[in-house]
Amino acid sequence: MLEALKAGRPINKILVENNVRHSVIAEIVNQAKQQGVLFEFVNPEIIAKVSPIGLNQGVIAYVAAKEYVSIEDLYRISEEKAEPPFYVILDGIEDPQNFGAILRTAEATGVHGVIIRERREVGLTAAVARASAGAIEYVPVARVTNIAQTIEEIKGQKSDIKNAGQNLKIANSGIWVTGIDMSGDTDYQKVDYRSPTAIVVGGEGQGLSPLVRKRCDRVVRIPMKGKISSLNASVAAALVMYEAFRQRQNNQ
Amino acid sequence: MLEALKAGRPINKILVENNVRHSVIAEIVNQAKQQGVLFEFVNPEIIAKVSPIGLNQGVIAYVAAKEYVSIEDLYRISEEKAEPPFYVILDGIEDPQNFGAILRTAEATGVHGVIIRERREVGLTAAVARASAGAIEYVPVARVTNIAQTIEEIKGQKSDIKNAGQNLKIANSGIWVTGIDMSGDTDYQKVDYRSPTAIVVGGEGQGLSPLVRKRCDRVVRIPMKGKISSLNASVAAALVMYEAFRQRQNNQ
Repeated sequence: MLEALKAGRPINKILVENNVRHSVIAEIVNQAKQQGVLFEFVNPEIIAKVSPIGLNQGVIAYVAAKEYVSIEDLYRISEEKAEPPFYVILDGIEDPQNFGAILRTAEATGVHGVIIRERREVGLTAAVARASAGAIEYVPVARVTNIAQTIEEIKGQKSDIKNAGQNLKIANSGIWVTGIDMSGDTDYQKVDYRSPTAIVVGGEGQGLSPLVRKRCDRVVRIPMKGKISSLNASVAAALVMYEAFRQRQNNQ
Repeated sequence: MLEALKAGRPINKILVENNVRHSVIAEIVNQAKQQGVLFEFVNPEIIAKVSPIGLNQGVIAYVAAKEYVSIEDLYRISEEKAEPPFYVILDGIEDPQNFGAILRTAEATGVHGVIIRERREVGLTAAVARASAGAIEYVPVARVTNIAQTIEEIKGQKSDIKNAGQNLKIANSGIWVTGIDMSGDTDYQKVDYRSPTAIVVGGEGQGLSPLVRKRCDRVVRIPMKGKISSLNASVAAALVMYEAFRQRQNNQ
């Protein structure tokens, strides 16, 4: 596990047994700290319980079900596809089933990549892989420390992608970042997603964090008729992804 | 509990302790059989574990988190709203989170009621109530024995509802039943949902059952670009509900 940590393999979390004080474990904890990997001290019974083979050495690592990519990889993927960038940014999705459903819709609508944050967000776990019904294999996921900062970066990203045969002035325009929030000022169907687009989805409980919301170029709302004021996060994300997909398909 | 059963209160399932042979329990089992309520014999430890107050008399009933309505109630609700009927039929949704998310979207899009089946489908449980974020309180749910038969019935249902101020010939036209399936023959956005409509959503694993599919007036598909061939059930349902909602809103 120390080797995996040193090699920077994506680890979602490490559990360390309370009373074990081996030098290797101390080193693992050190490495985890350095690399910002979450770790937790737990009772031996918990380690024994979660260990899939019943054997352990006082430490368990949750390795990502799939490797993460970098933001630069996402840019490269958009260039290879020769399409205006189309990303989804998750700002605090904690439920594996929601994350899996979002990956599934992202795959279906041709999203180039999904960006998630490291803390208080579910990563590429086995539960997410299951809920994604295989989509996890096809949708690249990048993990970043700070979503607000990443939004600033991708807004400035100069895109040289030409939309073949179209006269859309998307070259060198940067990526338009569209947040989804029930208090947004524009109907989600009244916005043009054909230019380079990143859709930002808030967490299940609190929606977009204020800092992230402030960084969005525009915030769209999904019209609702009833008494409840919000939709399931994966449903809201799907409606906007499908609207973007529809516009991009009609445009071809 | 015997009284609740006799009064026909909606009970999702009954657990009966293996070794208890009281006459009351025998009568409960009898009533459950007569009314088609699911029951299961389990070990005493299981009864003790699921009993919320730690006390029990060898039997536990899962009472619905909300009462079911009848199909006739749904017709009446549409008439009261003076809108063309707008229902969602679930053909085997087993996941409480999906059912909850569907109720949430149904509430947001003004669906008049949801129809579910009694067997191998999640009912109005506490988990569904949670996942619905309160929508369970506002969306009437009817539970039927046989979905295919219910579809036949509602197709024949003569609707006298006039769409105020519109010239839609929906009076006495019956309800149009639209199934969602990835192999459907029409794009879901190419169909008119302004007339009396029921949208049928298949289960998570196998989609629409063949018998139900055959009963649908039309089967729509949701376009997909990727390698995975289906969406999360609550996402697919939401896309079609929102398309219907959009058409109905624009029409007003």
